Amino acid sequence: MKRIMLRVAYDGTEYCGWQRQPNGITVEEVLNRELSSLLKEEIEVIGASRTDAGVHAHGNVCVFDTKSRIPGEKFSFALNSYLPGDICVQESQEVAPDFHPRHCECNKTYEYRIYNATFPNPLFRRYTHFLYRPLDVAAMQRAAGYLVGEHDFKSFCSVNTQVRETVRRVNFLEVLEERADFWRSANLGKEIGSGNNFHPRFITIRINGNGFLYNMVRIIAGTLIEVGYHKREPESLAEVLSACDREAAGQTAPACGLTLMEIQYNYSFIV
Amino acid sequence: MKRIMLRVAYDGTEYCGWQRQPNGITVEEVLNRELSSLLKEEIEVIGASRTDAGVHAHGNVCVFDTKSRIPGEKFSFALNSYLPGDICVQESQEVAPDFHPRHCECNKTYEYRIYNATFPNPLFRRYTHFLYRPLDVAAMQRAAGYLVGEHDFKSFCSVNTQVRETVRRVNFLEVLEERADFWRSANLGKEIGSGNNFHPRFITIRINGNGFLYNMVRIIAGTLIEVGYHKREPESLAEVLSACDREAAGQTAPACGLTLMEIQYNYSFIV
Repeated sequence: MKRIMLRVAYDGTEYCGWQRQPNGITVEEVLNRELSSLLKEEIEVIGASRTDAGVHAHGNVCVFDTKSRIPGEKFSFALNSYLPGDICVQESQEVAPDFHPRHCECNKTYEYRIYNATFPNPLFRRYTHFLYRPLDVAAMQRAAGYLVGEHDFKSFCSVNTQVRETVRRVNFLEVLEERADFWRSANLGKEIGSGNNFHPRFITIRINGNGFLYNMVRIIAGTLIEVGYHKREPESLAEVLSACDREAAGQTAPACGLTLMEIQYNYSFIV
Repeated sequence: MKRIMLRVAYDGTEYCGWQRQPNGITVEEVLNRELSSLLKEEIEVIGASRTDAGVHAHGNVCVFDTKSRIPGEKFSFALNSYLPGDICVQESQEVAPDFHPRHCECNKTYEYRIYNATFPNPLFRRYTHFLYRPLDVAAMQRAAGYLVGEHDFKSFCSVNTQVRETVRRVNFLEVLEERADFWRSANLGKEIGSGNNFHPRFITIRINGNGFLYNMVRIIAGTLIEVGYHKREPESLAEVLSACDREAAGQTAPACGLTLMEIQYNYSFIV
């Protein structure tokens, strides 16, 4: 028996999230099914991050145990030819048999992407959350500062969860702005950015921490959006934290804007 | 009667191209149907660029004539609420009644995007062409230089076309490289880029010209890809041009990598 780790990227649009559940197809289920059929064994992967329905990943991590003699780094090649186009293994590796992707210490990076423009753009709709009124990015950046460090994030955790310990460490939380008008107006004399229009842009909330509560990134994104619309002050984030009450924070932002970028493990479990 | 111009963005994945045809739904058809139902008139748009099945656009342009009293710049708002998520008007404007988007002089910019990595990434699959062997970008850049300027592009035109005049002017043709490893390995001691892997990257072929023959950008992309794989020399592009023969050029690259970025008109037709 050996333990294999996979780094998996997926477009979450068509999936009911990572974890197997009765309502629809999940990423975990597809991996279990294709691995079992490839290896002729009953395979059950253990995932690092149980992403929600509609959430994407560049680098979710999972492990499974197998009797197969395929070398660790070859599983990615073997498995990818069976997977649908919206799931693809990015690397595979043999790891120590006691490595558990949820119990070993790690840091995760998520990005929440907003497309902020007068009109939605179909080419961004699957992977960004569209907002048409201009956001105050400087205010969002100030607000983000209050969440960096070790805090009790109970206010940023959906109530339907059984987790007891709600203290987490946020290593960094950036709000990045990037202009998205690489296509331009059809030269009609009217410059984009004039009148009701403003420069279309991506606003990316990039967060890295040692663990995330249920819906934590999407509630942080939703709260920062409310700051960006001057519905709450950047300084109020300190009170939101200390309230330890989900009602104190903002709305949960939609899943499509969220991508799990990477998971970094702190100890060497390579075989 | 007045003439309205629309700048339209679309995800071409689910469409049989721009132009109405019997085999399936097209972007033009959806616009005609929704405009006719919105304005209670029979509307037929005239498009600037008849993009192929699967090709995307940030800024295709079309015009139509209407008796409606909606102000020119308001059509975008009115129409977008009826359009499906994969088509969205980015701006609208009243234009001179004699403005014809195909007969007026213009420059168009297309981008052909390649995702060059060991494994496909599901989050890029809709808008890039995936190639797993590393391309020689410097060779592609040298080859691109031969196509800039006014040339007979007959070799880069699909044979099933009736166009007589095949001379076009390419204003610029860039081959850009951008690293795409903003997610990283799960810290398994093995750096991405070592061994069989190489740094995943986007390679963007960006071309601007005063007109494009049928499949011209995709044939240029396919030919540059062959240069990138050392199947032909950069210098051979001069001979490909002078051959005036489709057989002399490379394969037509797949549609999903192609996006019509913008169309710029040279004379002022604003009302």
